[in-house]
Amino acid sequence: MAPGTNTSINRDQLGALITAGDGSALREFLEKLSTEERVYTILRLGREDIRKLFILLKPDYAAELMKEMPEPEMTGVVRSMPVADAAQIIDEMRSDRQADVLSGLDRNTTEAILNQMMSREVKMTRFLLSYPEDTAGGLMGVEYLNYNEHKTVLDVLLDLRQNGVRYSDYEVQYAYITGDDGTLCGVLKMRDLLFAAEDTRIDTLMLKKPVFVNATMPLDELSRFFDDHGFLGVPVVDGQGRLVGVIRRTAVKEASAKQANRIFLKLSGIVGGEELRSMPFFTRSGRRLGFLTMNIGLNLISASVVAVFQGTLEKWIALAIFLPIISDMSGCSGNQAVAVSIRELTLGLIKGGEFLRVLLKEAAVGLLNGIALGTFLGLVAWVWQGSAILGAVIGCALATNNLVAVCVGGLLPLFAKAIKLDPALVSGPLLTTITDMFGFFLALGSATMVLHYWPGLVK
Amino acid sequence: MAPGTNTSINRDQLGALITAGDGSALREFLEKLSTEERVYTILRLGREDIRKLFILLKPDYAAELMKEMPEPEMTGVVRSMPVADAAQIIDEMRSDRQADVLSGLDRNTTEAILNQMMSREVKMTRFLLSYPEDTAGGLMGVEYLNYNEHKTVLDVLLDLRQNGVRYSDYEVQYAYITGDDGTLCGVLKMRDLLFAAEDTRIDTLMLKKPVFVNATMPLDELSRFFDDHGFLGVPVVDGQGRLVGVIRRTAVKEASAKQANRIFLKLSGIVGGEELRSMPFFTRSGRRLGFLTMNIGLNLISASVVAVFQGTLEKWIALAIFLPIISDMSGCSGNQAVAVSIRELTLGLIKGGEFLRVLLKEAAVGLLNGIALGTFLGLVAWVWQGSAILGAVIGCALATNNLVAVCVGGLLPLFAKAIKLDPALVSGPLLTTITDMFGFFLALGSATMVLHYWPGLVK
Repeated sequence: MAPGTNTSINRDQLGALITAGDGSALREFLEKLSTEERVYTILRLGREDIRKLFILLKPDYAAELMKEMPEPEMTGVVRSMPVADAAQIIDEMRSDRQADVLSGLDRNTTEAILNQMMSREVKMTRFLLSYPEDTAGGLMGVEYLNYNEHKTVLDVLLDLRQNGVRYSDYEVQYAYITGDDGTLCGVLKMRDLLFAAEDTRIDTLMLKKPVFVNATMPLDELSRFFDDHGFLGVPVVDGQGRLVGVIRRTAVKEASAKQANRIFLKLSGIVGGEELRSMPFFTRSGRRLGFLTMNIGLNLISASVVAVFQGTLEKWIALAIFLPIISDMSGCSGNQAVAVSIRELTLGLIKGGEFLRVLLKEAAVGLLNGIALGTFLGLVAWVWQGSAILGAVIGCALATNNLVAVCVGGLLPLFAKAIKLDPALVSGPLLTTITDMFGFFLALGSATMVLHYWPGLVK
Repeated sequence: MAPGTNTSINRDQLGALITAGDGSALREFLEKLSTEERVYTILRLGREDIRKLFILLKPDYAAELMKEMPEPEMTGVVRSMPVADAAQIIDEMRSDRQADVLSGLDRNTTEAILNQMMSREVKMTRFLLSYPEDTAGGLMGVEYLNYNEHKTVLDVLLDLRQNGVRYSDYEVQYAYITGDDGTLCGVLKMRDLLFAAEDTRIDTLMLKKPVFVNATMPLDELSRFFDDHGFLGVPVVDGQGRLVGVIRRTAVKEASAKQANRIFLKLSGIVGGEELRSMPFFTRSGRRLGFLTMNIGLNLISASVVAVFQGTLEKWIALAIFLPIISDMSGCSGNQAVAVSIRELTLGLIKGGEFLRVLLKEAAVGLLNGIALGTFLGLVAWVWQGSAILGAVIGCALATNNLVAVCVGGLLPLFAKAIKLDPALVSGPLLTTITDMFGFFLALGSATMVLHYWPGLVK
């Protein structure tokens, strides 16, 4: 039966083929599906079957198939495979993808796989793994044409003829020309070779003073660089000006998309990389629980403020209705400011030390919106509970706490960055704790004062 | 004085040049700055000065400079300009960028600008604006080479010579060949023209059955398409197979990054597009307040549950300490599930109707983590307040509510999508309201039962 669009039938057929253990039949079946249906069907198999599937396929097709899979699934499969099989598959990938897959594994597994890979590849992959992920070094590829400046047109043509197979997945519109010490000194348009005499030295043909980026250039600058320039790729050099790789425009744009997703997941409390529902149950629940445990701890700290004022609450129970509202609303306002700061940091629109600018910009918004929200909630409390003083206490607490929340929310990502913490990870939980404590203190503290000085106002 | 890296000095100099009103001096000054410093300095000017700056510059350089600016700022500047100036600048942009800028404006402004633009450009831009943003039609460009299949090599060469200037910012490695009715019938590698006789018909040189995508193909499929294929661009056809544009790999990857950022901003309560602190104050505070007002309304609904149980709270005040914790923790857990669902929807890993699969996957995680968190909070409540029954009430309420929150959080984005609401926008506020109401009801309802049946247990 031909594969159709009914996933559960496809999954059963794929399962049967895996049990039969016939690699070429599997490939034939998978190739008939659309990419979407293929990924979808594979992810509906159990982890064990997915592992078997990739071992049964020939390494080159397995590598191709992995390219289609979401990254966390790909890493999961590689992790669960025998090292020898994993090494064979990774050997078939481009160097930047190898680094992607391996950087998701723990150190020991990475080492074990690298040890089984073919020697030429390993050196390159190790080299790429040595650069931080979101820099030019971490994003560049090492599949490019590179010739010494003293070579002639004939040398290049012979090399191309000899190594044509190996170069087949390179982008070969340009070759990068280096001096004897490896420093980048020019870029050669390959089509210029066609019109030149065979004994011409390539340094007379190349474009001198080529545009390049440093291996340490961070993602936000790279992104702006490619917004600015039309290049599809540029050479990457190390601190000594030596050519170490080529970074493609697409790699940068892809990394920006990944970064945005990581930020959104972290802010939502999904920590440790992407979670997909096809991942193993204990990985999913365990990673989520880690974040929740930190939060429950922080929540207990802010609840202790309520406990301190238990006597006040006992005398004035209506306050208890409004405490969760103050907590929730201040969290909302603060999170808006966190999001704006994280975006401005990502876009490079804000520099590390600009605390004052952020503070002033946020204070203005926080004050205006705080007054609006506080007045509204105060009036509601007054009318609903029939107590003007309750309205005043709740309204003032929300207004003030909104101002505090917005300022704290705007500044936290900057502080986090300054002390080298991940702004997306720590800003949310810290914000909630600070604003909860402060909000509870404001509401219950002022209520306590009212009860002390004007007990007659509280009915 | 030469521009340096001191932003406030640069800003003052730029401001002085704007007041002087000399367009070429301005350009000279700006070109000396690095891109980063240039954007940064311009954004530190007042909105009025930015507007003047872009009017003073020649339209072609103004268009180039706008490319470097963050999108919301660019839209803001265009909106505040005289229509004639805006039209001149937009005329200098590529068609896909024109559509980007104009789609950020209201209908009337867009029409006014289009009416002042040059006729050839307008038709194309109007055409691009007719496709939804995150589809192949909305992301494609219309700058490509297109020839009728009956043309000869000579026809093409003459056209290239004649229109060389206009084609200068096209990607000209390929030309797209269409039949008399406009249907795509082939792709021509431009370099194949070099080796062919001048009277050869191009339909004998072209690659037949070219790969293409439909104008309606959504972003997630496009993203997978380019993950799968090495192409830098592919032709886009309409429902009748007619060539309507060419979509570039970079445009797709850029759109993915933008989409991820929009999701993260919406989930954080930044609604209506990106907010940057250089934007006008009332735009910033107004948009934030809109989201907050909706939230305070929803919060009052959940607070009404607490109000119903005011009598219970009065008799058992310790409960008030734990209500904000239950509310906050259930929100945390639910948001994790929301994030996973939104990611799976974006990646196309989940189909609209798969409610049951999500429910089962989430229920398992919610149950396990709920038991863990409930047990922990229950024990803390017992030890802290010295009341085992308080621990039992709070612990059970959190455990149950965690299960509910995780299931609701996982399903909400799917429901939102099914009824054509934006999952990133509505899931968060609805989740909080549902889980707060349910959590308060569980804790206070069971406390009421305890007080009714075993009043002796509560000291």
